Amino acid sequence: MDINPNITPAEFRRLVREGRFTGTTSGYCPGYAQANLIILPKEEAYDFLLFAMRNPKACPILDVTEVGSRKTAFAGEDLDIAKDFPKYRIYRNGVMTEEVTDVEKYWRDDFVAFVIGCSFSFESEMIDAGIEIRHNTENCNVPMYITNIDCVPAGKFSGKMVVSMRPIPYEQIVKTVTVTAQLPKVHGSPIHIGEPSEIGIINVNKPDFGDSVTIKDGEVPVFWPCGVTPQSVVMNVKPEFAITHAPGHMLITDIKNVDLKE
Amino acid sequence: MDINPNITPAEFRRLVREGRFTGTTSGYCPGYAQANLIILPKEEAYDFLLFAMRNPKACPILDVTEVGSRKTAFAGEDLDIAKDFPKYRIYRNGVMTEEVTDVEKYWRDDFVAFVIGCSFSFESEMIDAGIEIRHNTENCNVPMYITNIDCVPAGKFSGKMVVSMRPIPYEQIVKTVTVTAQLPKVHGSPIHIGEPSEIGIINVNKPDFGDSVTIKDGEVPVFWPCGVTPQSVVMNVKPEFAITHAPGHMLITDIKNVDLKE
Repeated sequence: MDINPNITPAEFRRLVREGRFTGTTSGYCPGYAQANLIILPKEEAYDFLLFAMRNPKACPILDVTEVGSRKTAFAGEDLDIAKDFPKYRIYRNGVMTEEVTDVEKYWRDDFVAFVIGCSFSFESEMIDAGIEIRHNTENCNVPMYITNIDCVPAGKFSGKMVVSMRPIPYEQIVKTVTVTAQLPKVHGSPIHIGEPSEIGIINVNKPDFGDSVTIKDGEVPVFWPCGVTPQSVVMNVKPEFAITHAPGHMLITDIKNVDLKE
Repeated sequence: MDINPNITPAEFRRLVREGRFTGTTSGYCPGYAQANLIILPKEEAYDFLLFAMRNPKACPILDVTEVGSRKTAFAGEDLDIAKDFPKYRIYRNGVMTEEVTDVEKYWRDDFVAFVIGCSFSFESEMIDAGIEIRHNTENCNVPMYITNIDCVPAGKFSGKMVVSMRPIPYEQIVKTVTVTAQLPKVHGSPIHIGEPSEIGIINVNKPDFGDSVTIKDGEVPVFWPCGVTPQSVVMNVKPEFAITHAPGHMLITDIKNVDLKE
């Protein structure tokens, strides 16, 4: 559906909850933090929380729900973790088995949901600074790649870092670093600038998640740690059951980016 | 004993381990991060880790040990959590029962140790910026206070924030904020500047932990969140068993402050 990108996060979540929006969320509700998701049974929660703490660039935690709860007071009032992401992925023993728009029927009393900052959040700051967001212009999802960068392991959790990529003109690279570095809770500064093979990306035109975007002459691919990293970890560690968002299909929270600045 | 404050952290830890240094650690090994401690049984670890994550100003986690381990690779090689703090406190059901210089005999296979950043770390940066550290000049421990500021609760953990205080001349307050704000992993910027009663401190000359220091004319008390906060929480929540460092008696890590900058 065609919706006004400047509606409030609560209005946006209501559209999602009613099944009227199931797309990617880049560009919606500018100025508000968007969030990744991983839901795990409580018995996995300590190891994952420690994993997130040891990998704060890839997994900056915005909030963690109480066991069994579908609410998070920090991320927003009138919010349902099981319905307010436009799309979810169900993983059984590390294999993605379903993609759905609502996970109410899968919900268990022992679930803990980790709400993780998303780099879509700082795109409005980049746009304000005069930087084009290519996947917005090309009306597609951001390209994401599994890298050769090892996350710091914790308990049973280990795996490679996933990154998102935005092509940036040479003359805007420094500005890109300084603008995004102000928002570490939504991934912050880039993890890599330039040659994709340095971080194990063989073909920058073939992302592992999302869509390919044009890199023009005079532009450099710039890479940020990505909240899809938990999905790479889940595929690696194969917990019995996990739910994540579908890449690019984020929760839009009531948290203003300015309130995440340090 | 009289030791050179500029020895390496590894040399300092060895002196502590051998029982040759049992004092407060402010001023030693300038430029290296110092750390607070709380050790809890594994069954309490998830709730405490979540508590720390929700209260990052008071409880910035530097590292968490694997269950039962007395080592932390991140904080330093040649490091023994059970011996390398100059002084420890044993809490049983929320009551401090012993103060000891070594906790080897208390160690259990289900212990998890949380190594938490300490504001002693940024004192060398303050000194480099020309700011006097009063408790160094007066050769005593930093004053610490239990405030009326509620921490964000998590599971069973809740309680009031503890703060440390340094008197700062009016003309150095802005510099004090900017210098310390660069190091959020060791508490970062102040939580309060000025009137102590605003945060529930009735008599600034009677700290709850540590020693009183002189506040001269033209100086303002400046308060930072303090890693003794877990002790206030332990006294409030009364877990069956907990070990902390004694206030002011920190672990000196191999982590350089510069490597904690964002």
